Amino acid sequence: MAILSGINPVLEGLKAGHPLDRILIAKGAGGARLQQIIELARRAAVPVRFEERAGLDRLAGTPAHQGVVAMGASKGYAELDDVAAGALLVVLDGVEDPHNLGAIIRTAHAAGAGAVVIPERRAVGLTDVVAKAAAGALEYLPVVRASNVNRTLEDLKKRGYWVYGLDERGDQAYDRVEYNAPTALVFGGEGQGLHEQVRKHCDVLVRIPMEGRIPSLNVSVAAGVVLFECKRRRAAS
Amino acid sequence: MAILSGINPVLEGLKAGHPLDRILIAKGAGGARLQQIIELARRAAVPVRFEERAGLDRLAGTPAHQGVVAMGASKGYAELDDVAAGALLVVLDGVEDPHNLGAIIRTAHAAGAGAVVIPERRAVGLTDVVAKAAAGALEYLPVVRASNVNRTLEDLKKRGYWVYGLDERGDQAYDRVEYNAPTALVFGGEGQGLHEQVRKHCDVLVRIPMEGRIPSLNVSVAAGVVLFECKRRRAAS
Repeated sequence: MAILSGINPVLEGLKAGHPLDRILIAKGAGGARLQQIIELARRAAVPVRFEERAGLDRLAGTPAHQGVVAMGASKGYAELDDVAAGALLVVLDGVEDPHNLGAIIRTAHAAGAGAVVIPERRAVGLTDVVAKAAAGALEYLPVVRASNVNRTLEDLKKRGYWVYGLDERGDQAYDRVEYNAPTALVFGGEGQGLHEQVRKHCDVLVRIPMEGRIPSLNVSVAAGVVLFECKRRRAAS
Repeated sequence: MAILSGINPVLEGLKAGHPLDRILIAKGAGGARLQQIIELARRAAVPVRFEERAGLDRLAGTPAHQGVVAMGASKGYAELDDVAAGALLVVLDGVEDPHNLGAIIRTAHAAGAGAVVIPERRAVGLTDVVAKAAAGALEYLPVVRASNVNRTLEDLKKRGYWVYGLDERGDQAYDRVEYNAPTALVFGGEGQGLHEQVRKHCDVLVRIPMEGRIPSLNVSVAAGVVLFECKRRRAAS
């Protein structure tokens, strides 16, 4: 069973018509946005119950649920074939931190991507922490699981995609690339970056020119910088 | 006493000549980068001790210390007068998540900023979680505490700065601004964005044009997008 917690995730879950079994609201909690949740739940015929805050803490696994927890079916994964042909894609090669995965899903959605692809193994799945960090975007952006990232990249190339991998050693600056063919952006995990094999399957390795003494950015920040440059260039062309 | 934990933060602390009292390494831990820490510590005359892993867990407050914890003097705050005149500045208006604050410090350093300004109240301080999320950048980038953010913005304007606040309702797109005067970028806290008063003290409100259904980005991602656009424009001009 999937648990959504926090005002934004529950609100977005309702707006997206995500199947919810029940919504719990902490006794004593209030405010306009909780009222909006109650109203939307009524319209969607999702039962609302008022419970002690401690019960919500337990279900959410954290006291940071803002007084609302929803229980529903687990978010399913999509298939690559379900994603619009040519849509901007984000491929993750081993992102392990659920906050980063959630933030990347949120950012990819805001940059107009059609899906995020995550590997089946060696990576975080779509946990509730991910859903929360995605601030509702998980309701709108399909997530595809790849059993083998290298094979997925080859598959994308056959579909006419250009595959750009972000790498400190990349030979092109991220802001010198046109991104006007169907584009897949590949980002490596925290710490180690892209795996050697994945790097070899990219058409182009791009880097973010940096100042200072620290050689890399947080992966969700790096993804944001590249995704919005890509969006900017496409809007301008 | 400040605690640094993890290979990167300790390594960067040593490289930056940060005053450390002692370095603890978990018994049984090894690897080339721990060796490098030991060698740098020897040269800097910082005592190294080998301890049980449980002791390091306790000191670091987490088992995610990668086998190394350093104890040293608390990182001090800088004064605005110590920052190079005209340097790019990041001003935070109430960022509450230490991971976000750390990621923003890391990103600001990589984008060539001269300092990050945080409010004295209603915001997270420079905890060890912040230092870790900053991946070492806290050693290089001065952090200034403002007793009143509005007054600091007025002070900056007197020094010839242009103050850009990031706001969903901003009337200029972040990528249509030249940023060629001395620039201060202001980012609001998670959830509520800029305070009304702070918004009024900005010269220009900029927004990041977004697609999709979620109205905002994670604040550290948003800061990365704007900071690197600012860096890109300055490099091009």
